[in-house]
Amino acid sequence: MKKVDMIVKAPFFYTMQGEGVGFKSGVAMVVDGSKIMDFVPLDRVDKEYEAEEVLDMSHHAIFPGFIDAHMHTPDNIFRGLAQDTNSWMMYGLQPFSNAGRKEERVAAGRLAIVEAIKAGTTTLGDYHQGMDETCAFIDKTGARGNITQLIRAAKQRVYKTGELYEFVDEDGEKSLNENIELFEKWHNKNGRMRILFGPQGADFVSPELLLKIQKAAKERNTKIHMHVQQGDRETYQIVERYGKRPTEFLDDLGYLDSTLIAVHLTDCNDEEAALIAKRGAGMIVNPASIGIIDGIVCPSMAFQNAGGNVALGSDQAPGNNCHNIIHEMKNVCLFNKIKYGNPEVMPAWRALRMATIEGAKAVGVDDIVGSLEPGKQADFIAVDLDTTSMMPVYTYPMRNIVPNLVYSARGREVVLSVVAGKVIMRDQKLLNVDEQQLIEEVKKYPEEVGKRAAKEFFEIHGTNAQFMEEDKL
Amino acid sequence: MKKVDMIVKAPFFYTMQGEGVGFKSGVAMVVDGSKIMDFVPLDRVDKEYEAEEVLDMSHHAIFPGFIDAHMHTPDNIFRGLAQDTNSWMMYGLQPFSNAGRKEERVAAGRLAIVEAIKAGTTTLGDYHQGMDETCAFIDKTGARGNITQLIRAAKQRVYKTGELYEFVDEDGEKSLNENIELFEKWHNKNGRMRILFGPQGADFVSPELLLKIQKAAKERNTKIHMHVQQGDRETYQIVERYGKRPTEFLDDLGYLDSTLIAVHLTDCNDEEAALIAKRGAGMIVNPASIGIIDGIVCPSMAFQNAGGNVALGSDQAPGNNCHNIIHEMKNVCLFNKIKYGNPEVMPAWRALRMATIEGAKAVGVDDIVGSLEPGKQADFIAVDLDTTSMMPVYTYPMRNIVPNLVYSARGREVVLSVVAGKVIMRDQKLLNVDEQQLIEEVKKYPEEVGKRAAKEFFEIHGTNAQFMEEDKL
Repeated sequence: MKKVDMIVKAPFFYTMQGEGVGFKSGVAMVVDGSKIMDFVPLDRVDKEYEAEEVLDMSHHAIFPGFIDAHMHTPDNIFRGLAQDTNSWMMYGLQPFSNAGRKEERVAAGRLAIVEAIKAGTTTLGDYHQGMDETCAFIDKTGARGNITQLIRAAKQRVYKTGELYEFVDEDGEKSLNENIELFEKWHNKNGRMRILFGPQGADFVSPELLLKIQKAAKERNTKIHMHVQQGDRETYQIVERYGKRPTEFLDDLGYLDSTLIAVHLTDCNDEEAALIAKRGAGMIVNPASIGIIDGIVCPSMAFQNAGGNVALGSDQAPGNNCHNIIHEMKNVCLFNKIKYGNPEVMPAWRALRMATIEGAKAVGVDDIVGSLEPGKQADFIAVDLDTTSMMPVYTYPMRNIVPNLVYSARGREVVLSVVAGKVIMRDQKLLNVDEQQLIEEVKKYPEEVGKRAAKEFFEIHGTNAQFMEEDKL
Repeated sequence: MKKVDMIVKAPFFYTMQGEGVGFKSGVAMVVDGSKIMDFVPLDRVDKEYEAEEVLDMSHHAIFPGFIDAHMHTPDNIFRGLAQDTNSWMMYGLQPFSNAGRKEERVAAGRLAIVEAIKAGTTTLGDYHQGMDETCAFIDKTGARGNITQLIRAAKQRVYKTGELYEFVDEDGEKSLNENIELFEKWHNKNGRMRILFGPQGADFVSPELLLKIQKAAKERNTKIHMHVQQGDRETYQIVERYGKRPTEFLDDLGYLDSTLIAVHLTDCNDEEAALIAKRGAGMIVNPASIGIIDGIVCPSMAFQNAGGNVALGSDQAPGNNCHNIIHEMKNVCLFNKIKYGNPEVMPAWRALRMATIEGAKAVGVDDIVGSLEPGKQADFIAVDLDTTSMMPVYTYPMRNIVPNLVYSARGREVVLSVVAGKVIMRDQKLLNVDEQQLIEEVKKYPEEVGKRAAKEFFEIHGTNAQFMEEDKL
């Protein structure tokens, strides 16, 4: 009898090993310390192992915890304030973005993290300025972070149409140094945190700074997480400055390699997406966010067809407006079926791989998570199948658990989340933080943020200002 | 002091009166019997009214209950068995559809109804054969039904490509008579049930029967709820038989008028959709269902732009795969933004109108529901704003409650549902039926259905049979 920390018994395991979903049945999963140790037939496990804790999930399916690869959780303070408008950033977000203070953002960001975890996310790919507090909070929840600090040299001010951004070299250096500080403080902390480098985009920093960031990332054996060709605004800036489109510019700079995680590719054609994939970079697609902000389906299938790996992200609450990877799984399927007019493209299993093992490969964490296999971290979730959204459950002649998870589940079906062998969420309640207290704290902010934003909001007089006048909000 | 049954106090009411969302604040809603009686300023309500029950919803927004205008709930027995395939009906659904028995369908349908109610639906537009048991169950839950019995003369058998359906006149007559029986038994029962007439489509019945159905509906002052130009299969049948496309055929037959509720219009161009709208018919669009089944965004905006009203529907669980109108609201917005490449089209408030007052107009129930106003039925829901998906809540300089409901909520935020003045759901628990018992009952069926379906499933060997072999399910 070997003594171990945890045995997980369940009728269905989706390990995501191999090229499909790695389905296993009739087995138990053995966890010791932070790692998965073994899968053992159910009728043998109690003879071979003695566990501190036995999780008997009798009507549940076990999946690897989901990876939300790209989030701006501090923007959660602006949830629901910027959708349904053209020029999202200028007409929608800007009045609020200019009015939000750091403590307000950090507090609201915590709620976004709670929201994501309750829907099955165990690895959070947050990306913003000032990520120190966010790292501390993710660490407190017990979840895993794959965190990026934003690096930017372009001055934060209003630019006229066609005006090139003004680079302030010391701002760029300062934000790179903050990224390095964050790396030194948090990278590999408690075995659950990795820090990446985060130029906001090729248009927001000089080529020299881009290369300096690349050197810093490679020296530290970590990745660069960057918005790439994320819209016509970026394309215009790069074409004006360097005479080529962003993908070609980055390729010529030697930036398209396995160190890069390229986010969005909103303005890429299929050939550009394929080139980025062939150079070995990963991609993150944020279906609902870019759907709401731009009305665009990003070229994630072109990227995959060229052999690249794609992760899913929920992006930000002012223009999505939620942090729920199950929702992104369904959307990436539906949007591509609609884009190609073909119900066979982007099936459920593919989206599930993007939320797990394919996503892990895309963002470089597949050495530790993304699938359930001996030696990897014990990051997993249990989905309750005795629920209206997951029922009925078929096993013959086909299983319908994956389609029901991807196309029907809403998030509340996730009744257990384990990270690094520790239970962090049970029955939709986080164990290490007090959700009600976090909610109470955030309630005091909107009134102040709104007052500060009002002048610019009414001056810009965008879609949502009109909607207020017309009794449409 | 007038004695009444119920006073509802809440900070925000979205009454859906007028052309927008009918926002009211600082008021209480007074309910007497099954009807809304009054809106009174909060500081006066306790002086003017004495109520049996005071609902103090201090951190909630009140909306009219949602209308799910088109559902096939008995197909819920096949949830998750038919997506990601071409020729959905033949390669996906058929092996299972041929194997399902009535008691299995009815039992699973009950779970679909529970799922819908828990996500805020109060009026269910079910449409299927054998709706008597379904009416009885909806009646038991306390919800409202707008129910259609399916009428069909085309023989149920496998047809070769290009073969015209074989009409069996007595089958058509029989199903029309069943529809009339259902009408006589259930129409206006308990004030919460209406019965419509339901030819499956212009391709499934003869022109003579279509006209007979129309006469039966008009005599009874009710509506015809029919799939219209729902795909190239239908268009082919009608063109071959009558030498014109379905819309023109129906127009020439005198079928496009205010008695008709036209579902899907999947294969309609914008001009055909506009013609149907101009003739005074209503439309029901089922975004996620047709997205999954066909990869198509139906022309609901063309219909609206021509002055027509459009309701939302969740359609069926084998090819959607869920019954949740919040989900359909987000999808109708996203899909149209993507279809037109324009983030301004189909804003959140418009989708909310489709789920409430515009939907009520489209399906002819706006005399009793769809908005909160004195004299209408007291059908409403309370949405908890102290939740990660609805927070933060802004009221100035803009309100974000509607965008957060449409783009962020998942369903569990609906903590109270009232129909005809009676609470039917509280804290995600239905009060009049036992969800756990319904779940237990459905659990026994999939094994038997699967065994019966297996032979045809393997013979057809569609996408999902391949996925099973490839470890993708």
